[in-house]
Amino acid sequence: MSLDAATKPHEQLAEYLATDMEAVNRMIRARMASEHAPRIPEVTAHLVEAGGKRLRPMLTLAAARLCGYDGPYHVHLASTVEFIHTATLLHDDVVDESDQRRGRPTANLLWDNTSSVLVGDYLFARSFQLMVETGSLRVLDILANAAATIAEGEVLQLTAARNLETTEEIYLKVVRGKTAALFSAATEVGGVIAGADEAVVKALFDYGDALGISFQIVDDLLDYAGTEATGKDIGDDFREGKLTLPVIRAVAAADPSEREFWTRTFGKGRIAEGDLETALALFAKYDTLEATRRDAVLWADRAKAALDAVPEHDLRQMLADLADYVVARLR
Amino acid sequence: MSLDAATKPHEQLAEYLATDMEAVNRMIRARMASEHAPRIPEVTAHLVEAGGKRLRPMLTLAAARLCGYDGPYHVHLASTVEFIHTATLLHDDVVDESDQRRGRPTANLLWDNTSSVLVGDYLFARSFQLMVETGSLRVLDILANAAATIAEGEVLQLTAARNLETTEEIYLKVVRGKTAALFSAATEVGGVIAGADEAVVKALFDYGDALGISFQIVDDLLDYAGTEATGKDIGDDFREGKLTLPVIRAVAAADPSEREFWTRTFGKGRIAEGDLETALALFAKYDTLEATRRDAVLWADRAKAALDAVPEHDLRQMLADLADYVVARLR
Repeated sequence: MSLDAATKPHEQLAEYLATDMEAVNRMIRARMASEHAPRIPEVTAHLVEAGGKRLRPMLTLAAARLCGYDGPYHVHLASTVEFIHTATLLHDDVVDESDQRRGRPTANLLWDNTSSVLVGDYLFARSFQLMVETGSLRVLDILANAAATIAEGEVLQLTAARNLETTEEIYLKVVRGKTAALFSAATEVGGVIAGADEAVVKALFDYGDALGISFQIVDDLLDYAGTEATGKDIGDDFREGKLTLPVIRAVAAADPSEREFWTRTFGKGRIAEGDLETALALFAKYDTLEATRRDAVLWADRAKAALDAVPEHDLRQMLADLADYVVARLR
Repeated sequence: MSLDAATKPHEQLAEYLATDMEAVNRMIRARMASEHAPRIPEVTAHLVEAGGKRLRPMLTLAAARLCGYDGPYHVHLASTVEFIHTATLLHDDVVDESDQRRGRPTANLLWDNTSSVLVGDYLFARSFQLMVETGSLRVLDILANAAATIAEGEVLQLTAARNLETTEEIYLKVVRGKTAALFSAATEVGGVIAGADEAVVKALFDYGDALGISFQIVDDLLDYAGTEATGKDIGDDFREGKLTLPVIRAVAAADPSEREFWTRTFGKGRIAEGDLETALALFAKYDTLEATRRDAVLWADRAKAALDAVPEHDLRQMLADLADYVVARLR
């Protein structure tokens, strides 16, 4: 990998896939339009034009190109994946606002809950229309399953919140649901539309799955270890009672008085001045941030290992670099 | 029709389709289960077991049987239609609560907004899984389009609320979105899965479309003309600024002082004691409730006329009776 180089892996991918990504952007703009309901593009533009990295659609394009695809439908599928992602973000806004009131300027504060829910539904329906156009039932199967897994993961996260019995196994299910399911579906459908061998399709799924898990572990870790550069507030998850790996591990190692601390703060949400600092001290005592970081590296390594089974291609190295880059955010 | 008979048309249908409906109920229960997220069946059971008339799945079963279908997939499609309907209800709860706070014990009051949004998403994803199992891309196309139309109709309703420029044409678009799109998709896919002739499929679509429009016009009318027997509060739509046909017509006929009244109450939502009574008096002055009732009858007649093109069958008469029954609710 070349972290010292001027160009980051996702930027390299964006450059390599520039023509395809332009086609995706055109398709997204065309399909989010609604003749009768101008509110719809207003709300989606807020998210779609916000200029995220477009990581998920790039994964689909890269997987298809890597397998030698030269038809038109990787653009439909990349747009599909971005629509599903955007719909999820819109619905997450409602979820977060109603339960936690983070106070960020999410779409549902700029407009309202109603628009977030309905426009999310619209994009979700639109994404299925795009899939139907590919004519591939297998693609529909993969993405319908991913959509169900995403919703299940979000509900599971909800019921796991403030529950100190949450295990690493449950955490992994939540992470697969909220993040990895769409990553792995994104890469898998790229291989499927290209008509790749089953072993390659499986490898692309495994890559997306491991990359997504690594990505989410890092995201959760940055909630405690982030700096101003990452743009994240430290301790959001602590205040919201979201059990992530650093906490799950500290709870598992806790002595009785520490367990009392976790029960009060995470279990009951009664948080006082200085509690976040105490939590961070306990993470240090049991080295749980470093252990979590090692987990993220492990999953990134698994993502790279999966790529051994995919064809030789410039994009293969970029995908490997991307896996390294995901954990490099931690330095 | 036989309104005097002891058995109502939807009950006749339920009796005729009893074996199929049992299969649908089994499939719904099986597919709404989630191994990892027990909250999901808790929320859906509230709606699914609430014992609605199950009109929409019955339409799919009836359409398929009418066309001589004897395969297994009408059950998948009827379950799909009920899942989409239930997902819509769950998301409507959030929409209504956040904007209007009707104070009814909707799922989002019994649980929370979050569960309503996420479980709705889950059911929506599950519905697409069921469609994929039928192996019919055409069915997926029809229902993905219906889902997009539903969301568009709801957003359109939102932006049309409190807008006195709302026309009958816009009202019809809203009604097609919020109600008729799923009725017409329900009957159309029944014909498609049965491999019926295009003319029959078209007739089934037309029947569902007209039935759905009639159904919604009646529903909106009952908001002003209902009795205690219908279980609806009079004037909900008035308080919420929802422009329905009786109002649209009264606004179109209004003299300047009446227009001021509508601008204050519907346009600005400033409603005082006695305003509902004034609105009802204006409806009487311009006979808009009766004109709206005639519209509902017209659409019911169109629904029945569409049935001329479908095969002779016991179910055909039951579907015709159902169209009559929809408007008979007004008596």
